[in-house]
Amino acid sequence: MSGHASIESCRDRHNEPVRTIDWRGDHIELIDQTRLPGEVVMLRIETVDALVDAIKRLAVRGAPALGVAGALGMAMAALTGDTVQAVRQAESLRAARPTAVNLSWGVDRARARLGEGPDAVLAEALEILEADVRVNHTLGSRGARWLLDALGKQAVNVQTHCNTGALACVEWGTALGVIRALHQDGALGRVYVNETRPLLQGAKLTAWELAQDGIEHTLVVDSAGPSVVARGMVDAVIVGADRIAANRDVINKVGTYPLALAAARAGIPFVVAAPESTIDPATPEGSAVEIEIRDPAEVLGTDTPAATTALNLAFDVTPADLVTAIVTEDRVLTTR
Amino acid sequence: MSGHASIESCRDRHNEPVRTIDWRGDHIELIDQTRLPGEVVMLRIETVDALVDAIKRLAVRGAPALGVAGALGMAMAALTGDTVQAVRQAESLRAARPTAVNLSWGVDRARARLGEGPDAVLAEALEILEADVRVNHTLGSRGARWLLDALGKQAVNVQTHCNTGALACVEWGTALGVIRALHQDGALGRVYVNETRPLLQGAKLTAWELAQDGIEHTLVVDSAGPSVVARGMVDAVIVGADRIAANRDVINKVGTYPLALAAARAGIPFVVAAPESTIDPATPEGSAVEIEIRDPAEVLGTDTPAATTALNLAFDVTPADLVTAIVTEDRVLTTR
Repeated sequence: MSGHASIESCRDRHNEPVRTIDWRGDHIELIDQTRLPGEVVMLRIETVDALVDAIKRLAVRGAPALGVAGALGMAMAALTGDTVQAVRQAESLRAARPTAVNLSWGVDRARARLGEGPDAVLAEALEILEADVRVNHTLGSRGARWLLDALGKQAVNVQTHCNTGALACVEWGTALGVIRALHQDGALGRVYVNETRPLLQGAKLTAWELAQDGIEHTLVVDSAGPSVVARGMVDAVIVGADRIAANRDVINKVGTYPLALAAARAGIPFVVAAPESTIDPATPEGSAVEIEIRDPAEVLGTDTPAATTALNLAFDVTPADLVTAIVTEDRVLTTR
Repeated sequence: MSGHASIESCRDRHNEPVRTIDWRGDHIELIDQTRLPGEVVMLRIETVDALVDAIKRLAVRGAPALGVAGALGMAMAALTGDTVQAVRQAESLRAARPTAVNLSWGVDRARARLGEGPDAVLAEALEILEADVRVNHTLGSRGARWLLDALGKQAVNVQTHCNTGALACVEWGTALGVIRALHQDGALGRVYVNETRPLLQGAKLTAWELAQDGIEHTLVVDSAGPSVVARGMVDAVIVGADRIAANRDVINKVGTYPLALAAARAGIPFVVAAPESTIDPATPEGSAVEIEIRDPAEVLGTDTPAATTALNLAFDVTPADLVTAIVTEDRVLTTR
């Protein structure tokens, strides 16, 4: 691995895989994803303010992990014993990032137990944490099985975008959970990974996770993803979701929509893997979602002319008619 | 311009705009595009080997500029007086980059005059050089007029990809020539520019040219280009071409195809601006073109895991049915 952080440094003393985010008695421990793939650094988070900061700078990211972070943050706030302050902190947690529904879902679920005392809030948060692990394994297996059945194939090559792996959740992953399940079943050829500008979650996080697991993978620039599909190099596109509207429009990392357009034109499945908590009945359709616009500095180079501005859209909307299937822990919704 | 190379440093002593590539009596002078936008460095090219190197490392790039470079390189070879060697050098020039048809077209046009002596080869090359300037202005005006007529609008916002400006030609530009003509006519709102990974020709070259001209522009990551279209922020997409097949499939910088898919879905014009020399009757359709695969190192980061490979496709194919219009110096071909 030529000096890269290895899987060994990512296991605890009982040889269990280290979780992306976990509860340690009175504080949160999480992997600082801004330091990967160069090094695995664990962050000790002891206050809600520190958690909000970690969420904003993407030290922890990925819709399911954000749900867990929101709930654990709420528990941390409740354990201080100051309920008024805890309610105020819930709002700052919910506002840390606007697009993924899971963050506010996690905060709200834990906050609902505030009247029963801090221990109840913590119990709820820990249940969300453990459920995420179960949910990911279940949806990964279901997605793998569905895909092989739908394609009538023994093995498949797939394309994915951004990071939807263990690092986006507590363990295992959503879209990458499906890919891991295919690999476990000996049904995976090669994975094409978009680098995912501007923050390169594909190149930095997904490539790292796939390398750890010994899964063959090839990186392409984001704009080449549709070409990989058009050239017949993959059998399906599998992505995660930050929010799924009631009409099944999918809001996910910017760059998802062009892959869906390409998959539809090529006639291959475009599969979205996400927990049920990502489906938001309160969002009628994609256009109703506030798309996070991040700092232009993430896009602009140091030598970009002063007159140049940047629009840093973090997510895009894939209309429901381009989505072949949505796989959750409970079901497969086929919409194309 | 906060320390950036300014337009002043890009004018010669007669206050004429410095050309991207020009002939200086016995050698070629060209702007080293790998140094932009930080600094404007002129390269003195005295041998065909040096020219081949400049082409391979993209110091000179863009289909029309490559046509001129090929012809001037052929003239430089002919002027040595060694015809056998000149014929051999023609092959190494033609092979410097495989996808753009203009490079071999320029070499072939100049080489055809080899029997008439070195002066005839040079005269042919200089005619190609001067014609490029005329052609660009003509197609720019025609494209601007056509677009405003087609849309029935007084002013438009447009999206473009890669660099198709003065830097891709001798002066003015193809797709960026259309955009400049719109600006000259007071008919241009804002230009959205894709950064164009991996080499960032949009962020480094197009943004620089637009800043020089005082044209309002906004940079987006490549994967956000289709979102800009879907969100109704632009009235049209305008790109150049490296080759246009007989069936009107368009081969252009990777990332063009997703924009065409998005434009078709949004029902806005997808316009290709290119000289007639880009149309290759010998290429029946896009799938017949060899797509240049460049060094994976352009995509891989220094901290990418050792097990990660990269596929660096430099171009993609946009099927003819997604192209609304092809604008050349002679005509507008409408195909959608």
